[in-house]
Amino acid sequence: MPNKILIIGAGAIGAFYGALLAKAGADVSVVCRSDYEHVKQHGFIINSNDLGRWTFTPSQVLKNAADFKGMADYVLLCTKVLPDIDLAALVRPAVTAETAIVFIQNGVEIEQTMLTAFPDNEVISGLAFICSNRINPGEILHLAYGHLALGNLPGFISSKTIRLCELFVRSGIECEATENIVTRRWQKCIWNAPFNPLSVLSGGLPTLDILRSQETFVRHIMQEIFSIAEACGHSLPEDIIDININNTYAMPPYKTSMLLDYENGHPMETEVILGNALRAGKREGIACPYLESVYSLMKLRELKLNQSA
Amino acid sequence: MPNKILIIGAGAIGAFYGALLAKAGADVSVVCRSDYEHVKQHGFIINSNDLGRWTFTPSQVLKNAADFKGMADYVLLCTKVLPDIDLAALVRPAVTAETAIVFIQNGVEIEQTMLTAFPDNEVISGLAFICSNRINPGEILHLAYGHLALGNLPGFISSKTIRLCELFVRSGIECEATENIVTRRWQKCIWNAPFNPLSVLSGGLPTLDILRSQETFVRHIMQEIFSIAEACGHSLPEDIIDININNTYAMPPYKTSMLLDYENGHPMETEVILGNALRAGKREGIACPYLESVYSLMKLRELKLNQSA
Repeated sequence: MPNKILIIGAGAIGAFYGALLAKAGADVSVVCRSDYEHVKQHGFIINSNDLGRWTFTPSQVLKNAADFKGMADYVLLCTKVLPDIDLAALVRPAVTAETAIVFIQNGVEIEQTMLTAFPDNEVISGLAFICSNRINPGEILHLAYGHLALGNLPGFISSKTIRLCELFVRSGIECEATENIVTRRWQKCIWNAPFNPLSVLSGGLPTLDILRSQETFVRHIMQEIFSIAEACGHSLPEDIIDININNTYAMPPYKTSMLLDYENGHPMETEVILGNALRAGKREGIACPYLESVYSLMKLRELKLNQSA
Repeated sequence: MPNKILIIGAGAIGAFYGALLAKAGADVSVVCRSDYEHVKQHGFIINSNDLGRWTFTPSQVLKNAADFKGMADYVLLCTKVLPDIDLAALVRPAVTAETAIVFIQNGVEIEQTMLTAFPDNEVISGLAFICSNRINPGEILHLAYGHLALGNLPGFISSKTIRLCELFVRSGIECEATENIVTRRWQKCIWNAPFNPLSVLSGGLPTLDILRSQETFVRHIMQEIFSIAEACGHSLPEDIIDININNTYAMPPYKTSMLLDYENGHPMETEVILGNALRAGKREGIACPYLESVYSLMKLRELKLNQSA
């Protein structure tokens, strides 16, 4: 019997990974709000530079998880993490005793909410390294990358995680099961913490310009994330900052996800990327004035955006 | 014989102070580039909330200091301080052995350029606490304040400084002759260093919103300026930060000069306010990560502005 999977938040990330799971033989349904009518009629078109172009017709297209019929083996939460969204409430109606709750989301220290909300369920933490955009209703353009990391807390890999990984690998993308998913979040944060806010606060510079102009400042922020992660028990490789710097120099000029949100008038993941890291730093007694500056300026930017809205 | 004064940079600040000096009986000429034709024909209209409305007809209206006829007792430099403007070159053609060079300009550590360029002349450093705008060609709106501080380096008050002060006082504004003009610059920088860049980087928030949302961040920047000033030998009053915070809460919401420049597409005084303070901090071995963050972000903002121009 195929795995029964419900994707919650079928945007650029959720629809893409859902389409891959369907391709690998799973029975995939979606909760999708903004494009509901379109997707109900036409499904999704996935346009991937690496994997080709195909149509993904979900098993069920829903407005709410409560409308889901059947028992989900996995619920994949692929929404953004924003302070005013109650993620547990989005998921709860589709959760049974056998359901594993998977979140493929940005940020650090985001697991506890789900672990607390679903103490009797399996919770799988997932991290995507991907560049994909929703370019039209129901149409996803997958530009690059796609690599996933999945793991359980605290620090193990369950059989359900392995099964999900195998599905992704069968569909054509890399997926790594890891005992260190929390460490991997901090690792990703090394890059996100400087480049996401700096791209917004600069008024829209791509990563390469930021780096060429203010490499020292970027390194300061990275160093603070490194120290916070270490204080939280997640030592990162010594050369991780150099590697991130060198990789970014080698990348084509890139617009960060926060900049895309900003330019499209969408809310930004300031709290889950910067706020959570900063709060962890304060809790652990790590001085992080650079991170604090960038966070404070993002809060001012958001205040101004809300005034103008 | 009346004092013969040449104003270089007759914008919102220069035209206003020139008009006051003329009112007090001085023979005032102006170098004014952008509004040259208009001012040559019609003079300036000064519209002041405190001092009324009057027309200021300069004795000579010039495009260049080189066209000035006669010997100037004072040359008042009232341009912005920008990295690509050679201030000494602007002034030099009108300077004789008897001329005192006065600059009424923002920023810290700006005196040395003029002292080096004119080793045999008297140099007077001046600081304006004023809110005035050029609203039309040749028309200046003086909104509030107007207080001046003038002094000589290193730390004295000359008779020419006293004479100039008396002229200003006679014209109706406060002018203080001070032995501590450099200290006064640092004192002003306590306010400028946070509020100017934060108003720009937030995308246009007035001072009150900045303070209400991020008072702690504002205080961190102020504290760094305080420490740098102290290391440079300019101890500021212990309560200066509290006073600045309280005064800003009491002020009506205010757009900073840097924000006005930003909104009008004019170059900003990032280097002379933030860059010079930061360089002084590094020279004196003072850690200033908050200031450094704000400066780095302003450089990124300017890079983006130059790309878009």
